[in-house]
Amino acid sequence: MTTQQYYSLTPETVITYVHQRPQLAGIFHPGESLEAVEVGDGNLNLVFKVWARADHKRTVVIKQALPYVRLVGDSWPLPTDRARIEAAALEIHARFVPQHTPKVYDFDPVMFAITMQHLDEHLIMRKGLIQGIKYPLFARHIGLFLARTLANTSDLVLDYKTKKEEVARFINPELCKITEDLVFTEPYRQVERNLFHKELEPQVLALQADEALRAEVAQMKEKFMTQAQCLVHGDLHTGSIMVNQTETYAIDPEFAFYGPMAFDIGAVIANLLLSYASHEVRTPDPDKRADFRQYLTASIIELWQVFSREFQPVWDQVDPINMPKAYQDGYMLRLLQDTAGMAACKMMRRVIGLAGVEDIRGIQDVHERAIAGSLALNIARALIMNRGQVSSIDHIVELATAARPTYPWTA
Amino acid sequence: MTTQQYYSLTPETVITYVHQRPQLAGIFHPGESLEAVEVGDGNLNLVFKVWARADHKRTVVIKQALPYVRLVGDSWPLPTDRARIEAAALEIHARFVPQHTPKVYDFDPVMFAITMQHLDEHLIMRKGLIQGIKYPLFARHIGLFLARTLANTSDLVLDYKTKKEEVARFINPELCKITEDLVFTEPYRQVERNLFHKELEPQVLALQADEALRAEVAQMKEKFMTQAQCLVHGDLHTGSIMVNQTETYAIDPEFAFYGPMAFDIGAVIANLLLSYASHEVRTPDPDKRADFRQYLTASIIELWQVFSREFQPVWDQVDPINMPKAYQDGYMLRLLQDTAGMAACKMMRRVIGLAGVEDIRGIQDVHERAIAGSLALNIARALIMNRGQVSSIDHIVELATAARPTYPWTA
Repeated sequence: MTTQQYYSLTPETVITYVHQRPQLAGIFHPGESLEAVEVGDGNLNLVFKVWARADHKRTVVIKQALPYVRLVGDSWPLPTDRARIEAAALEIHARFVPQHTPKVYDFDPVMFAITMQHLDEHLIMRKGLIQGIKYPLFARHIGLFLARTLANTSDLVLDYKTKKEEVARFINPELCKITEDLVFTEPYRQVERNLFHKELEPQVLALQADEALRAEVAQMKEKFMTQAQCLVHGDLHTGSIMVNQTETYAIDPEFAFYGPMAFDIGAVIANLLLSYASHEVRTPDPDKRADFRQYLTASIIELWQVFSREFQPVWDQVDPINMPKAYQDGYMLRLLQDTAGMAACKMMRRVIGLAGVEDIRGIQDVHERAIAGSLALNIARALIMNRGQVSSIDHIVELATAARPTYPWTA
Repeated sequence: MTTQQYYSLTPETVITYVHQRPQLAGIFHPGESLEAVEVGDGNLNLVFKVWARADHKRTVVIKQALPYVRLVGDSWPLPTDRARIEAAALEIHARFVPQHTPKVYDFDPVMFAITMQHLDEHLIMRKGLIQGIKYPLFARHIGLFLARTLANTSDLVLDYKTKKEEVARFINPELCKITEDLVFTEPYRQVERNLFHKELEPQVLALQADEALRAEVAQMKEKFMTQAQCLVHGDLHTGSIMVNQTETYAIDPEFAFYGPMAFDIGAVIANLLLSYASHEVRTPDPDKRADFRQYLTASIIELWQVFSREFQPVWDQVDPINMPKAYQDGYMLRLLQDTAGMAACKMMRRVIGLAGVEDIRGIQDVHERAIAGSLALNIARALIMNRGQVSSIDHIVELATAARPTYPWTA
């Protein structure tokens, strides 16, 4: 067995693999007994947890890119180059927010495998939110993560040359294409891969028939495809965030590329609002529901406030003659408005498109699931159709909380 | 002498060079007597005309990139990679508008030299406009050139993968940096390299003190640096256009990169408006002046009309479900508004910044030169400050023709 050639790892071969990597010799002793399990629940990769039988604290996660989309099978090939992208993005994140980035111990460009810190005291945030768990530091952490990673990879900070070379280094056509199709194209037309419930069909058909809405979505898609503003994570939903009560980590930046800041910020807000919609039925007790929703909307407001505050040092160091205050304010306002639009697209795709979220698709009762989906679609509609008038983060929250499910009244 | 290593050509060595290139054997006979002259009047390159003594019709132009900015000297080094960019851009232009693109016979990646069609029956358009010569087909030709080259290199036509690979292939950091500095930064602040006449100083200082204007310029700069919309020529002023009464050629795309369409369209319009401003004093006879200005403004309107019409086939082939009519109309309107903003920046830099245009800087009388410069600045101000309200190309022309010189009344 050699690592000179790519092969898919298994829980058995991954142990031999770990012992062969000199980069991991500081963690595991030569030849010591290891255990491994495959835990990947994403769509694109194998993910193994490996630990020393003698000391479970010595543990790593190994993520290996498969040459096809796991969810669909080998009929949808996908370049393993995304492992290089992910490793490079993690390196940059570690530079700016090490406290929110899993440590990378090893990147193997032959096996397209990244060996990294095992976040064994953390939960995937989506699973926590489904259970109604609050993460009081999340908004502050993710606001900081967004401000640091987005601002520091933009033209506001990078010199002209590095920025352009980074755009080239992070071109990521195949993964961007998945987003272009699944987020910005398929949900708004009749496509076989779309996946929603019969109960929601009237509302989905009405949404797809709305030309004004489709025109707004097309603008957001254009920005996604042309606005090389900074290195975005590219897939920052609550399934890409590991949390507990004190720590927050952003994982899985394999979709990273030079795109609009609003795409990442919108992704986080969209997923908080999908949770908000899901608790319409997931939390029947009105007081508990209101309380958890209050947590979610306060988190949205706080993350933007922290983001703006942490972005400020960047504005403080730009040249105020060429980037006067009026421009800086306009920049942040345009960013907020685009964030509303991007969040809307990310919400609609999760209800209508191929890849859903457990928050809503995991609701057992078909009727309840339709109510949550209907509410999510109406929040999204309010955000994208009022995007141009959005003037503050509170305004976004007001638009979201004013929305109601259409189902079952028009069904 | 060998071409295995770079050296600067001279009128003597270029003849030996030509005979050594097998790619040119179809034009010149082995060892035949050739004549050559250096004619470069640009800032960045050597340009030779070479012809057969026995037959002046067998002639080429050889453009060699110098490793520094010619205008400034070897204190400003500049990568010769721009010759690769120019050859690659000319190849793409030839694919879409061969009738408006000089034929390339040879690209030598060692000498950074392009051997191309000698346009010996054409004049640099700027020189013709200064003399008050009308080019009745120019607007139609350049409108077609813009529509074909910009649309066909955008996401509207290219597949997702080619587009992104082309963005990487055409990263052009050093040449973009020149534009970022000379067009979008230096004219709006006090910089030693700026070059304008004492007489204009009060108006320039007032413009530089205008924060609202600087905020608009900053937005245009942001678009220039982040909007990877299509392959733009990048330097499409009237000195990069060769014309006669029947033909139009766009030359010198060494500044090409993936940027905003509006930058190229704005460059053409800016230079027609700089000519418009210059004839305030260049053509004292009011009837003659009105007549030539009528030609210039009609050309601006016609070039946009032709551009829109020739763009239409691209809209006809996109998917109207995901890019509905409302989006298409919005796209063209945003493009027009950005064109007004880009044109304004290109005008201001030519009056205030390091690199001027002969139309205005070539006016002998200091007082007259200041009048023309003042008018150009006021046209630019009207365009950029009203950019967001621009609703048609006629509207742009109205804004321009309503402007008047401030000098000497406030001087």
